[in-house]
Amino acid sequence: MRPWKRLASSTVLANRWINVTADKCLLPNGAVVEPYFVVHEPEWVHVFAINTAEQVLVVRQYRYAADAVCTELPGGVVEEGEEPLAAAKRELLEETGYHARSWEYVGPLFANPGRQTNRIHLFIAREISAASKQNLDATEEIEFHFLSAAEVQVAIDSGEFSQAFHVASYYRATHFLAAASEA
Amino acid sequence: MRPWKRLASSTVLANRWINVTADKCLLPNGAVVEPYFVVHEPEWVHVFAINTAEQVLVVRQYRYAADAVCTELPGGVVEEGEEPLAAAKRELLEETGYHARSWEYVGPLFANPGRQTNRIHLFIAREISAASKQNLDATEEIEFHFLSAAEVQVAIDSGEFSQAFHVASYYRATHFLAAASEA
Repeated sequence: MRPWKRLASSTVLANRWINVTADKCLLPNGAVVEPYFVVHEPEWVHVFAINTAEQVLVVRQYRYAADAVCTELPGGVVEEGEEPLAAAKRELLEETGYHARSWEYVGPLFANPGRQTNRIHLFIAREISAASKQNLDATEEIEFHFLSAAEVQVAIDSGEFSQAFHVASYYRATHFLAAASEA
Repeated sequence: MRPWKRLASSTVLANRWINVTADKCLLPNGAVVEPYFVVHEPEWVHVFAINTAEQVLVVRQYRYAADAVCTELPGGVVEEGEEPLAAAKRELLEETGYHARSWEYVGPLFANPGRQTNRIHLFIAREISAASKQNLDATEEIEFHFLSAAEVQVAIDSGEFSQAFHVASYYRATHFLAAASEA
């Protein structure tokens, strides 16, 4: 399974919100694909933060492109020059006001590797405490609350917790913790 | 949690591969966001196909934007006028040559609701059999094989099965089947 070769790449849309290139690609079978559109994204982080009752901290916000209110894990964009762990700590604090004393890295997943360049870095946060108020942008309206594992499953089944990236991270974290507790 | 209002929308990139609009949005707090970029995508399908040994049928392909070879579930785009179930059957057959006699709909997830319009529809396929050869586009190179649940977990942990959308669908299907077998 050999990679494609980039023969050329030109920017078709670039600003502070979105960055799209149209690439010319040589495939292993000799075919040339042009244009192939790539959305260049910064890395993202997700935080699976649990309290001592093993409830998960979730956020709820309106998502414009799908016109839906989504329950999700805290998370966001890794800023330029920032480490993923620092971004995870910052996003958790900004979105919920929570701070955690224990951090563990689960690993990365590709967000959408056929179209997007970036990965989602998943962290587990424990020994959490409410440290401050939310610190949101003017365009952000975010609620947060705790859910048990059974309540998250109900929310997934009902469509309340319905964002694929976050469903991936939620289940991945629960399996990671289950494997760790069996080891 | 109130929705944003679309005040205007203009197309900035539209062709057979990608469709991006720049919208002007009125937020519930009175703020106006402009431009807000939306990527308009068709609906997608994923297929969790299992054999009588409870092994899952996975595909493996090169994904250009992330420059990575990814193990995933079979799936793809719902074509215009096509029902999601028909798309699931078509994609399974095209990518693997497999046909299934039993189909069950698990439900939808939003792909990336802050940026993209579309959902991923997840189906479970059982009573499967190899019915034909793969039927791939000239730009597609897809391998397929079966993995046990333990092998998928190893592939997720190692980064082989590393696409967030497919990790979401894989775990969601396994939890759906576990809940059904307990009921």
